[in-house]
Parts: sequence; C-alpha cells; structure tokens
Amino acid sequence: MAESARRAVGRRLQLPLLCLLLQGATAILFAVFVRYNHETDAALWHWGNRSNSDNEFYFRYPSFQDVHTMVFIGFGFLMAFLQRYGFSSVGFTFLLAAFALQWATLVQGFFHSFHGGHIHVGVESMINADFCAAAVLISFGAILGKTGPAQLLLMALLEVVLFGTNEFLLLSLLGVRDAGGSMTIHTFGAYFGLVLSRVLYRPRLEKSKHRQGSVYHSDLFAMIGTIFLWIFWPSFNSAPTTLGDGQHRTALTTYYSLSASTLSTFAVSALVGGDGRLDMVHIQNAALAGGVVVGTSGEMMLTPFGALAAGFLAGTVSTLGYKFFTPVLESKFKVQDTCGVHNLHGMPGVLGALLGVLVAGLATHETYGDGLESVFPLIADGQRSATSQAMHQLFGLFVTLMIASVGGGLGGLLLRLPFLDAPTDSQCYEDQIYWEVPGEHEDEAQGPLRTEEPDTQA
Amino acid sequence: MAESARRAVGRRLQLPLLCLLLQGATAILFAVFVRYNHETDAALWHWGNRSNSDNEFYFRYPSFQDVHTMVFIGFGFLMAFLQRYGFSSVGFTFLLAAFALQWATLVQGFFHSFHGGHIHVGVESMINADFCAAAVLISFGAILGKTGPAQLLLMALLEVVLFGTNEFLLLSLLGVRDAGGSMTIHTFGAYFGLVLSRVLYRPRLEKSKHRQGSVYHSDLFAMIGTIFLWIFWPSFNSAPTTLGDGQHRTALTTYYSLSASTLSTFAVSALVGGDGRLDMVHIQNAALAGGVVVGTSGEMMLTPFGALAAGFLAGTVSTLGYKFFTPVLESKFKVQDTCGVHNLHGMPGVLGALLGVLVAGLATHETYGDGLESVFPLIADGQRSATSQAMHQLFGLFVTLMIASVGGGLGGLLLRLPFLDAPTDSQCYEDQIYWEVPGEHEDEAQGPLRTEEPDTQA
Amino acid sequence: MAESARRAVGRRLQLPLLCLLLQGATAILFAVFVRYNHETDAALWHWGNRSNSDNEFYFRYPSFQDVHTMVFIGFGFLMAFLQRYGFSSVGFTFLLAAFALQWATLVQGFFHSFHGGHIHVGVESMINADFCAAAVLISFGAILGKTGPAQLLLMALLEVVLFGTNEFLLLSLLGVRDAGGSMTIHTFGAYFGLVLSRVLYRPRLEKSKHRQGSVYHSDLFAMIGTIFLWIFWPSFNSAPTTLGDGQHRTALTTYYSLSASTLSTFAVSALVGGDGRLDMVHIQNAALAGGVVVGTSGEMMLTPFGALAAGFLAGTVSTLGYKFFTPVLESKFKVQDTCGVHNLHGMPGVLGALLGVLVAGLATHETYGDGLESVFPLIADGQRSATSQAMHQLFGLFVTLMIASVGGGLGGLLLRLPFLDAPTDSQCYEDQIYWEVPGEHEDEAQGPLRTEEPDTQA
Repeated sequence: MAESARRAVGRRLQLPLLCLLLQGATAILFAVFVRYNHETDAALWHWGNRSNSDNEFYFRYPSFQDVHTMVFIGFGFLMAFLQRYGFSSVGFTFLLAAFALQWATLVQGFFHSFHGGHIHVGVESMINADFCAAAVLISFGAILGKTGPAQLLLMALLEVVLFGTNEFLLLSLLGVRDAGGSMTIHTFGAYFGLVLSRVLYRPRLEKSKHRQGSVYHSDLFAMIGTIFLWIFWPSFNSAPTTLGDGQHRTALTTYYSLSASTLSTFAVSALVGGDGRLDMVHIQNAALAGGVVVGTSGEMMLTPFGALAAGFLAGTVSTLGYKFFTPVLESKFKVQDTCGVHNLHGMPGVLGALLGVLVAGLATHETYGDGLESVFPLIADGQRSATSQAMHQLFGLFVTLMIASVGGGLGGLLLRLPFLDAPTDSQCYEDQIYWEVPGEHEDEAQGPLRTEEPDTQA
Repeated sequence: MAESARRAVGRRLQLPLLCLLLQGATAILFAVFVRYNHETDAALWHWGNRSNSDNEFYFRYPSFQDVHTMVFIGFGFLMAFLQRYGFSSVGFTFLLAAFALQWATLVQGFFHSFHGGHIHVGVESMINADFCAAAVLISFGAILGKTGPAQLLLMALLEVVLFGTNEFLLLSLLGVRDAGGSMTIHTFGAYFGLVLSRVLYRPRLEKSKHRQGSVYHSDLFAMIGTIFLWIFWPSFNSAPTTLGDGQHRTALTTYYSLSASTLSTFAVSALVGGDGRLDMVHIQNAALAGGVVVGTSGEMMLTPFGALAAGFLAGTVSTLGYKFFTPVLESKFKVQDTCGVHNLHGMPGVLGALLGVLVAGLATHETYGDGLESVFPLIADGQRSATSQAMHQLFGLFVTLMIASVGGGLGGLLLRLPFLDAPTDSQCYEDQIYWEVPGEHEDEAQGPLRTEEPDTQA
Repeated sequence: MAESARRAVGRRLQLPLLCLLLQGATAILFAVFVRYNHETDAALWHWGNRSNSDNEFYFRYPSFQDVHTMVFIGFGFLMAFLQRYGFSSVGFTFLLAAFALQWATLVQGFFHSFHGGHIHVGVESMINADFCAAAVLISFGAILGKTGPAQLLLMALLEVVLFGTNEFLLLSLLGVRDAGGSMTIHTFGAYFGLVLSRVLYRPRLEKSKHRQGSVYHSDLFAMIGTIFLWIFWPSFNSAPTTLGDGQHRTALTTYYSLSASTLSTFAVSALVGGDGRLDMVHIQNAALAGGVVVGTSGEMMLTPFGALAAGFLAGTVSTLGYKFFTPVLESKFKVQDTCGVHNLHGMPGVLGALLGVLVAGLATHETYGDGLESVFPLIADGQRSATSQAMHQLFGLFVTLMIASVGGGLGGLLLRLPFLDAPTDSQCYEDQIYWEVPGEHEDEAQGPLRTEEPDTQA
C-alpha cells in the first residue's frame, strides 16, 4: 500500500519534470534561433520606412485572435462535455496548446522562415503555431480521458514535428493549397489520434463507462466550445490566405458552409434519434463539419452554392458517423474515439481534401482572372495545368494519411512506454486522478464528483 | 397509447423534413441567384486593380465577428436562464439563426444587391443577414419554451421576408436612418414576437410554472450571454454605418449608453426589489437596454452626454417594465412574454426610434459639417429639411409597428396550424421533449432534469 | 427584530441612491466637459479631409474589444470561482466597471486630453478607461466577498482618481514607459486593494470559511474567465502602444510570455500539490502572470527568449505565492486576499516593473534604430540616457507603490464608515445578501444555495 503510494507519487513527478524540461529546452532554442521579423523588430521596421498602417498586424491579428479563441476556449470547452473530466479537458487543452505553440514556432520556423541562421517571428508564425496546436488538440480528442498529462506532452512533442514535416511537404514541396487545413490540420490530427488510440486500445474500458457520458450542465459548457468554434471558423480558414479577396472570400464561404452543416445536422440527428429527439453529441460536433470540409477549397472559387452543398454533405456524413460508425470503430477496429474526431475531423477532412481536388481541377484563367496568381500561383505562371494541380492535391491527401498513420503508430508506442504515468482502466475520464477536486472532503461534496475507488491513490 | 406514440413520432418528423426542405430550397436559390461580389470574386477584385488593404473585409469583418458572437453566444446563452430549457435555448438559437442568415441573404439580396439577375454577397451581406437573424431571435424570446423547432423555422421563414420588406421600405424608400436597428431590428422583432405570442396564448400555462424559473447555474450561463451582448453592442450598432468617423462615433456612443443603463438598472432593481435585493432578470436584460436605445441615433451627433441620458432612461424603463408591466401584459393583454422582450427590445426600441426623430430633427450643417453627407445624405443634398427627415423617421416607426403587428398575427395563425408539432401546456419549458437529456436513465440522474410526466411521450 | 429589518432595508437603499447620485453627477460632468474628438466628430473629421481608412478606429478598436472582453468576461468569471458568490462576482464586476469607465473617462480626460475647456474622447479614451476599470477590479479581487456594492462604488470613486493621478505622474511627468500597465494597472491595483483589505481585516472571518471554496462547476465558470484573459492579454498589452511594429511586437511578446507562465504554473502546481495533483487556483491565476510581467517591457526589444524567461519566472513566483505566501499574508500581515491578487498582480507587477528597468537600461540606438523614437522618445531626442530612463522607470515603481498604499489606506478608512452597509462576518461570500437567489423558496432549492442563517435578514 505505502509502496504503491510512493510509486504513484513518483509517477506524478513526470508531469512537472517534463514541463520544466520542455520549457527549458524550448527557451534555449528560442535564445539561439528565434528573432523578431521585419514587422516586429523596431530597427528593421523603421529602416524600411513603411507606413505603420501597412504592418501585417492590422491584416492578420483580428483573425489570429479568433483562431486563438477557438484553440483555447473552443477545443477546451467542447471537450468538457464529460461529467467528471471538465478540469482535465479545459486544463490539459491549456497546457498542451501552450507547449505546442512554442514548439511549433521552432519546428515550423525551421521549415518556413529560417534565414541567416535565425527563425523570424510575427503574426503569421503565431497563426501557424496555433494551427499546429489545433491539430494536437484534435488528436487529444481521440484519446481524451485515457492518458495522463505527461503522456500528452510527449505526444505533442512528436506530433508537432510530424505536423511540420507534413505541412512542409504539402505546401512547400508539392505546391498543394490548403489554407484552412482540411488535410494538414484536420485529416492529419484525426488519423494521428485515431491510430494512436488504436495502439492504446483498452479492452476493459467499460470499467469507466459510467463516467463516459455527460451531465446537463457539462453539455452546456460544451456548447460554449461548439459555438465559439462555429462563429470563428470563418476566421480560422481565412487567417493564412492571401490578403484582399482571398481572405474575404474564404470567410464568406466558411460562413455559408457552416450554416448548411448546422441544418443537416439537426435534420439527420432528429431522423436517427429515438422518438425523433435531438442528440447533443451531434449538435456539438457534426454542426461544425461545414468548417472542416471547406478548409482546402474555401479560398478557391467554390461559389456560395458550393459552400452550402459541401456543408450540407459534411453535416450529414458526420452525424451518421456518430450514430452508426463510431460503435463499429470500437467494436471492429478497436479504436476508442472519445470525442468522435473521426466524424468531425477525419471524414470531413478527407471530404474537404477531395473537394479541393475537384475545385482545383476546375480552375480556369477565366474564373480567377488575375486572382489566379494568388490562389494557384503554379497554374498562373504556367508550371502546372489545373488537372496537374488537382493530382498534386490528391497526392497531398495521400501523404498526409501516410504520415499521420505512421506517426500515430509511433506515438502510441511512445505513450505505452511502461514507466509513463497512465490512468488505470477504472480511472479513465476522472479529474480526481490529476486534480484537487473541490467538494471531496467537505459536506458540500457532490455525489458525481466523488470517486468510488478511494483505493486508487493508496 | 401506441396510437398516440405513433402520432408523436410522426410529428417529430416535421423538424427533419422541414430542415431538409428549407436547406434544399435555399441551396437551389443560391445556385441560381447568389454570386461573389466585387470584393470577394477573384477575377472582379483583381480586375479592379485595387490595393488589397482597401478590401472592405478589413473595415467590416472585426465588427461582423462581434455581431456573430452576439447572435449565437449572446442570444443563445441569455435565453438559457430557464432551468430545464438550456439545450433548447442554445440549440434552437443555433438552428434558427443558421437558417435565418441564409434566407435573409436571399431576401435582403433581392431588395438591396440584385443586379444583372444576381445577388452579390460579401461582408456587408453577412452583417445584414446576422442582423435579420437577431430580429428572429428577439421574437423567439417572446415565445421561448412554448413552441417546437418546426414551428420556429416556419416563423423564421415568414419573419425574414417581412423583416426584409420593412427594412427596404424604411432604409431605401423612406430614407430613414437606422444603423443599429432600434426600429428595423428591435422594435420589429419585439412586436412581431409579442403579437405572435398573443395569438398563441395558453390560458393554462401554469401547468409548466415550476419550470419557468432559473436555477443558480442557469443564471450564470445566462450572464455569459448578457455580458457578450453588452461588450460587443458597440460593434453591433456601428457595423453597418459609413466608414471613418461614423463607425467610430457610433461605437463610442453605444459604449457610454450601455454603461449608464447598467447603473440605472442596478439602482432601480434594488429600489423595487424585496429587501433591496437585486434581481438577476433585470441585470441580465435591462442593463442591455442602453444598446437598443441608441440604435438609431448612435451614428448621429447625439453627444456623449446624450448617450448617457438615453442609456439611463432606457435601463430605468426596462427594469420597471420587468417589475410592473410584464405581469399586466399577461393578465390584461394575454401576452406571455417569456424573456420580457417587450422590456428589453420593445419599449427601448420605440424610445430609440423617438430619440432618432429628435436628434435627426436637430441636425444642422454646422454640427455635421461635411459629414452631413454621410449621416443624412438627403438633407445634405437639399432634398429634405431636418424636420422632414424627423417626420420620415417617425413614419418609419409607424410602418415598423404596423408590419410587425400584422406579421406577428399572421405568424401566430401559421404556427397554430393544427398538424404542427407543439408542446402541450405541461410540456412547456422542458428540454426533454426535443432532446436526449443526460442523466435520464442513469444513477446520476438529477431530480430537476427528470420530467414528472413520463406519460407525455406515451 | 422588526427594528433590525428596517435598518437592513434602510441600508439597502445605499446602493440605488449611490448609483443614481454617481450616474447623475457623471452625466452632468459629461454634459459640461466631454466632446467628440477629431476622429469621432462628424464636422471635425471631414474638415480634416482625411481618408476614412486612416481613422484610428481601424487600428485600435479590435484591440479595444479584446480588452473590453477581458474586463467584463475575464475578471467577472475568474472571480466566480466561489461556490455561492457567482452572481456577485459577475454582477458587481459589471456594475463597478460600468461606473469606473465613465468616471475614468473624466479623470483621465482632465489629465490627458483637456483642451479648450473640453475633454475629447474616442477609441483611445475607451481603452484607457477600460484599463482603469481593470485596476479597480484587481483591487476588488482582494476584498471579494467581504464588502457590499455601495462600498465598492465608493472604492472605485476614490481609486479612479488616484489611478489617474499616478498614471499622469508616471507617463506624463516622469516619462515612464508602461504600455501594458505592470506598474500603473497591476502593481497599483494590487497594492491599493491589499492595503485596503488590511484596513478591513476581519479577525473572525472563519465564520464564512465554508463558503470560501469552490464547487466543481464554479471552477469551470472561473476557467472561462481565465482563458479569455489569457487569450486576449496580447491585445491588452499592445492596445495603447505606438502603431506598427510596437503594437505587433508587444502582442507577440505577451503571447510567448503567457505560454511559458502556463508551463511553469503546471509544473510548480504539481510539484507542490498533494500527491502531485494540480490545483485549480494556480491554473486559473498563476498561468496569467506571464501577461502581467511583460506589461512594461513588452513593447521594448525584450526578445522572444526574454519573453519566455520572464513568463516562466512569473508563473513560478505566482504559484509559489499562492501555495506559501498567501497563508502568511493572512496570519502574519492580517491581509485577507480573497483572489490572491498579490500573487497574480502584485508580485508579477513589481517583477514586470523591474524587468522594464532592466530592458530600458539596455536600450541602444543600434537595437532600436529609428524605432527608438517610438519606444523611448526621450532617449531618442537626447534628453535622457538609457540609464537615466531606467532610473525613471524605477522611480515610477516607487511612486506607484506609495500612492497605491496610501490610497488603499484611505480607501479602507472610507469603507469603514459606520453607516455603510457591509456584510457581517457570517454573511461573507454569500450572494443571498444582495441578490434574489433562485431555488430559495422552491422545491428545487439546492442545499449549497441555501444560507444556514435565515435570521441574517431578520
């Protein structure tokens, strides 16, 4: 008993030591490599003699703030639907994203803005780092409740590197367009997390089944996450596009797509629900699929109708996925997908990539005019035909699926290292393992917050 | 029993079928009519050879995002104060607004941006569509808890058309100024909803009385809605004004007006409260009246003092309305106004319209200088005197009240169609009729979430 | 009994009367003194013949909205962690800030934008007024739960004047740089509140001890506050800086600093926690210390590494403060610091001021280039050396601590005026004293919401 308590406390040291180690290493790398860029350095900016109103800050920062809200409020609260895992959902989202954005700044910086031995940072690197953090949080959704925070940090350590590599392959080497990240963020994050969850398969997870559901107020907290993701998704998809019409069009497209996925989600949820009743899980998640599905094609000339059609399809597929495919995923494929990321990010991400293939293949000089240069520079300067661009887009999807799957497998093996602190099957989806939970030792203690296994810490 | 169950399930099909029908019809109309405008179309934007920094996106989109937050987070959570109706408040807000914004894009597009057989869309149409969705949600507030989602969609179908018509009459034909919508949004939405609620009067609603109140945490969720509405209202009123000083001044005015309505709401709430205690209903609602009351005059030269005085008055009137007039409205006028929209949007909206009459009537070339052209173009180019503009403003209020009232009556008759699924008197304010509610079949089931009428679904 | 009830009701009149008095006085002062500035006045703006896109609105308003969100959502919900004080935390934040921003507009206006007998207002005055409101809310945090709303309004009345005076002394007379307010906002607000709390020391506060903790969902509400503060802090620190690189760099710096303070907070919280478990109090508060600590130096050339190091240190110090120093503060220094503002704003504010001394002292023409004029105008035009600037910064910290401490003492004496309504020792941290609390007289009444002292209102 005392022995196991000592071991438990010893394992608990993994989180603080890993935090300190990772933060220390990141800080040293920042000291050596990271510098202000031309838009954030006092001397460089003023040397350029440019008007302050031209600073990229004014064109990107409002979008960045919306993305930042989505990452920390959106993902955090969306995952707080679990009745006893709200502290962990919001708290570990906070921790993971705070680390991932620093590490992504380094990894993406080496790939994209490494000049003269230095990485140069500004609002664009902030947006990209937050995007990478979003992918990590998508993967987190697949394993929510079944891993400890130290495991999660290690996952982020690996995933950010692979995310950066995949992003570099697609955007820089293959010339693939994917502004809102249907491939690089959603498909990558989902399949990385799903394969990882497969490797971590827990055959006796039913021991924690009573905690896998929501309670009334936890569902309302989750809706805070959902709605913030929904309202700011137009900013997400448009944050890194070319300025002017590109950013404007992408936001508009996403707005329409999301509104259609909301209607199809309500329709299908009621159709497949018992007594025609709506299911909060569908509304909280599938209604967002419209944002995922236009991640690639949103900046292209998808047309408003195309946005509605894509959103409608994505909401439908996603809701059906929650209803019919998630159970199969567990029973047949042994993938325990806590938040259903396969339905919200996986399938809509792949659909979005394929939609991008289609819309890229239809690109003409007539439709895009001089704007072709912004959206498809390689077509505009004659290096590629539209069909060739479409093929590259398709190959990009393939590359993403490969890297995500192999990476998720590696991640799973990493997280299974025997000395890592992980919750037992009966401790899953339980805040109390990692947090001081109020009400525990007081009269006000609420039944649902009490663990029925006081011996787990003994 | 089995018969009634079958009928109940049959009625539940109304929501999904209506969603699919409306989304399908909207998508077809989009395919035929809706096109990117000059600011969102790749070819058109680049053909114009304009600087990307001139794209309207950068001047309107941050405001749009605040408006979007108000519509989906603000209204949704504000209405979640009911103890057992949080899923419906947030969820139906989500559904209704997602449909209304698409439908409004079409209706407003036909009235305002129909050129060459096409509707042209961009950030301005997004703002206007969200404004229209806000009016629909105001009407929703009057009948909250007493209608099914299929009824609500039908209401939106009708109301959006009438909203668009009224807006066109006022802004385009009558040359009325109403940037923040004291008339077109608040007065219209409130009286449409109130008359509709009158037609749907339920004499035996006391059967659901035990669910009409809040619980502690539902009031805190509602405060999330309140505060987001309050902080972003300056963006709401200023989102569609002329650029430059107009947008800037409107935001400033609204900021002051809201701060004064907050103080008067706290003062009056404590004065009329039992033992001098504050009432959450007042704070959640009346404190916002300062935003409504400067909806028309905010872009005019109201002066900072005028903003404080207007806000103070609006908060006072609104709080007194909640305390003394809402009970009379039900007992004498048979209007059951769930959220008190008469106090938050009706009276302050009318006050705001009258304030607009006053401030427009006082307009001089001296006060506005060359800015007169932006605020009162018809006065600036000599077509109207300030007095004439004031009379037109007043007539605009009259038109709004007429269309809203007649429209609300029609809406009520529409929603009373006997085959439409509506909750019974004892099912009002209850999520469980339309949602799978957690805790229902588990040990963790909370008393307040259980319906005491298990036979209602039988 | 009846006598004490009458007296209680009489005391309750203090809040409404004070609200009416303060709002009336403010409105009169606005009528006499406050005018639109060149950017918000129709005639003045158009007379200048400037492009609408040059209006300061477009450069400052998005930042303002983020600051506004922090003040009303951030502070309000962060303080809602108390199990029975959520209405008061959110509601009194709302009231206090709504008053403080009006009063601050006047006080700061007299100091900073008083020309020709008038105060001129626009988005900059809105940002500054919200900053002042933030300082008042920081002080509120130190006395949360132990004062009535009328006392709080009086505190704001005094504190805003002293805040304005201190700000004027530092920024205008001493030429100190403090864009994000490490000194003027955080240090000032914290020590004003702490000294005030000392004067209001309640030796028998253990009577309310059972209400001083959180419950599960109140901690989640508090996390809404935390995360909104965290994500928008880059906007807070950069809102009032010079445009262009200054605003951009400050946002970037704050972003990094916060991410590092998050990691160090998680690390230290787990290290010092029982069984290695994390404490929500630390995560909710200390993770934000990274924003406070770069409030002065964020606009300077701190470097990204410097931001990480500063944030790391601040998170560590703040967490250790919560764990080890807060108890001592109460037992030894008789300061009952409800929210631990000494740990979140006090120590990190002083650290931030000292960091500003250091970074200012290291300023060179080489590092800042022509940007030196924006960041350190007095060094740029040769009036001061970098060392002299550093000394002025240090003196600014000293002045701030003096004014805050003396002011807090005065404030405490003011709030102890015997006729002022204050909760008794057993009524602290209890909404029911000031609010109609739902569930009180109904079957749905929740145990934790019931007061066990029904006689307190008798």
